[in-house]
Amino acid sequence: MSTKLLAEFFGTMILILLGDGVVAGVVLGKSKSQNAGWMVVASGWAMAVMLPAFIFGAISGAHFNPALTIALAVVHKFSWAQVPGYVIAQLLGAMVGAVLVWLAYLDHWKATDDKAGKLAVFCTGPAIRNYSSNFITEVIGTFVLVFVILGIGGVKAADGIPTFVVGGLILGLGLSLGGPTGYAINPARDLGPRIAHALLPIAGKGDSDWSYSWVPVIAPIVGAILAALVWVAVF
Amino acid sequence: MSTKLLAEFFGTMILILLGDGVVAGVVLGKSKSQNAGWMVVASGWAMAVMLPAFIFGAISGAHFNPALTIALAVVHKFSWAQVPGYVIAQLLGAMVGAVLVWLAYLDHWKATDDKAGKLAVFCTGPAIRNYSSNFITEVIGTFVLVFVILGIGGVKAADGIPTFVVGGLILGLGLSLGGPTGYAINPARDLGPRIAHALLPIAGKGDSDWSYSWVPVIAPIVGAILAALVWVAVF
Amino acid sequence: MSTKLLAEFFGTMILILLGDGVVAGVVLGKSKSQNAGWMVVASGWAMAVMLPAFIFGAISGAHFNPALTIALAVVHKFSWAQVPGYVIAQLLGAMVGAVLVWLAYLDHWKATDDKAGKLAVFCTGPAIRNYSSNFITEVIGTFVLVFVILGIGGVKAADGIPTFVVGGLILGLGLSLGGPTGYAINPARDLGPRIAHALLPIAGKGDSDWSYSWVPVIAPIVGAILAALVWVAVF
Amino acid sequence: MSTKLLAEFFGTMILILLGDGVVAGVVLGKSKSQNAGWMVVASGWAMAVMLPAFIFGAISGAHFNPALTIALAVVHKFSWAQVPGYVIAQLLGAMVGAVLVWLAYLDHWKATDDKAGKLAVFCTGPAIRNYSSNFITEVIGTFVLVFVILGIGGVKAADGIPTFVVGGLILGLGLSLGGPTGYAINPARDLGPRIAHALLPIAGKGDSDWSYSWVPVIAPIVGAILAALVWVAVF
Repeated sequence: MSTKLLAEFFGTMILILLGDGVVAGVVLGKSKSQNAGWMVVASGWAMAVMLPAFIFGAISGAHFNPALTIALAVVHKFSWAQVPGYVIAQLLGAMVGAVLVWLAYLDHWKATDDKAGKLAVFCTGPAIRNYSSNFITEVIGTFVLVFVILGIGGVKAADGIPTFVVGGLILGLGLSLGGPTGYAINPARDLGPRIAHALLPIAGKGDSDWSYSWVPVIAPIVGAILAALVWVAVF
Repeated sequence: MSTKLLAEFFGTMILILLGDGVVAGVVLGKSKSQNAGWMVVASGWAMAVMLPAFIFGAISGAHFNPALTIALAVVHKFSWAQVPGYVIAQLLGAMVGAVLVWLAYLDHWKATDDKAGKLAVFCTGPAIRNYSSNFITEVIGTFVLVFVILGIGGVKAADGIPTFVVGGLILGLGLSLGGPTGYAINPARDLGPRIAHALLPIAGKGDSDWSYSWVPVIAPIVGAILAALVWVAVF
Repeated sequence: MSTKLLAEFFGTMILILLGDGVVAGVVLGKSKSQNAGWMVVASGWAMAVMLPAFIFGAISGAHFNPALTIALAVVHKFSWAQVPGYVIAQLLGAMVGAVLVWLAYLDHWKATDDKAGKLAVFCTGPAIRNYSSNFITEVIGTFVLVFVILGIGGVKAADGIPTFVVGGLILGLGLSLGGPTGYAINPARDLGPRIAHALLPIAGKGDSDWSYSWVPVIAPIVGAILAALVWVAVF
Repeated sequence: MSTKLLAEFFGTMILILLGDGVVAGVVLGKSKSQNAGWMVVASGWAMAVMLPAFIFGAISGAHFNPALTIALAVVHKFSWAQVPGYVIAQLLGAMVGAVLVWLAYLDHWKATDDKAGKLAVFCTGPAIRNYSSNFITEVIGTFVLVFVILGIGGVKAADGIPTFVVGGLILGLGLSLGGPTGYAINPARDLGPRIAHALLPIAGKGDSDWSYSWVPVIAPIVGAILAALVWVAVF
């Protein structure tokens, strides 16, 4: 693999290890951070993105998200030839990250009764199941994600500063738009760990809710492309 | 529209989408972030301001607030000719942002009984209704907002740093002075979403509390002008 | 007054307005942020220091704290001739800041029964009253404050960055060492608002606990001088 | 002692004073921050690392962690000759920091019944005791710690920025991977205060859980070396 793809792989692995990890800590039985609240969840995901983004930004662009990769290709800011490799590296990284979360919390799965909670560690689900509404929520969230990322890219700032804005963006999206669907806003973040959930021998797990799985894959791609088109048209 | 006005429009749209969005998450029924607490609310609003301020600072000055726009004009740091366009762009952006919050939480309005809570997603209201006291609180809050913004403008700092201070300012104002009135400190932030609340077909909504609506419009303008005059006189 | 003294006055005013303000929000009855928790308190104080420190750092050095001013003079990093002016400006700023908190929360004093809580908005008090232990706690806290501030001063960093470290320092001190005495670590922060509490017509107030008032004045000065002496001797 | 060793000593002292201090505040009886939650704990430890890292980074490299020191030596980024001095300075600093926490919370030990809680102020313990699982958790946590630190070291950033990323790293590790074992990820952080717990006349203390003490010493060293080897091999 090229260095770029390794960066996408390891970056998405850390993203999911820390992102799914914070949910594990909050949801799983006997965890020291059980029921620690939404500020913990949103801050955990913010760090989960910011840390690998800082390290790998200059190497691969630190996408870690097929929706972003595809949207950048749509507006000619990324070559289509690299898209398949990036997406595969992101998915593989997300799956390995999910396996590491399973290992890090190894004895806590059997200490947890709630099957839906165990699935929630790995992937998102709607607070109120209604595919069209859930789809809209994920489109809006990913629209903001990609719109702001493209905006950040155009700003003159001291080296390293933009990554903190990206961290703030993930924090803001979680705090403000995470309520209805848990803010997937990233197909790899949702699908990779969902596959891991299906494959891993998790103690007392339930089903992997495949009926919902297309929403956090398709809607983020739609929202990301919309944002890229609007940004390029307007600014 | 000029690029400046588009920046004010989109910036205020993101401000309200993320700002009103965090309140929606905390207030609305069945939201994953329901009752997540004041740290979530204040942090959400801080990101709601910081993110578009970072993107649009160099384009439009990132006012997103008629009180700031007017106060800058009063002390000759902004041309009066541009004030009407800015204020209209801010109000329109705030209204569109509020519509997007309504959409992002589409199924959660009927899952919520509390009419006052639904209004609180859109605009501010007093903890203890007393127009003169509420007015004083909003004057003090906006005084600090504009005083510190003018101070930040005079500091030599690496590119991008001042925007983080602005984010910290919004965080601090929410944490410290949000208790009595919910810190509108911005006429567009309050009036735009209040109009949206009146117009949108929100499930089970109550009235839009127009009797209070003048306080978060007039008081921030007074506080902002006072701060600008004091700053210019002293430093 | 010179610009330096005006900076110390306004800086300490904002420090207390936002610092005592966050306590008011958490403690006073019917406040929207009532019982919002220690993260809110510590973050509020962090912003209360960081914001004026950013604005006034280059003008006055942004002491806002007689213990720091005196300790810097002891190790010849600040002229003794300026000490009295600085301390008076800090105390006056703290008193005016406390008056503004009283005004911002004007209707919430009579909505609060807890006399000790009302005093806690203005100044600190011990969780377990024992003057010698309380004294030690305040010495340790202020030692860290001044030791780290002197350390920050020696680091090569991009313009504006050190102020964020100071904000993190106040956050850390509050989170880690605030439990026993509420971390005064600053004579002006405690004495100025205590005087304001004694003078203001606060609805249903109790006494101003003058018997404890010497601890948060003397102990911070001792801790600050110790830190300055150790730092200068070692690094 | 050389300036480097003094920096490691004082840096680790502050690390433990603020880190163990935040746990003391949350755990001990009658503390103002009692039961303040996981966000407070993780943020406190983040500041506990970031502050001395900022001050001492240019002097000693700001390791404060024998696992990091050893891993850097394994991959030839630090001389083996300096390892013993660093490790001793780190352990001594951790012990002195723990003594200061005991002093800062002096009257709160007898106000606390929970013996396990008192030990938790000083050192880590597993949520579910299973040495092999606990070992894996600490290996994964320290792997991320050292992997990201090595990554940060390769990034071009404005002076001072990398330290904030380190602070975010500690925050993220605490939020996401602290649930099962309390994230020691540092032999000195755990062993130094555990020795202090054994030696100090803490009111109503229990045993120092020496049977678990090898996990947070050995596992972090293993995880750190693994991370260094992977990083050097791949990037």
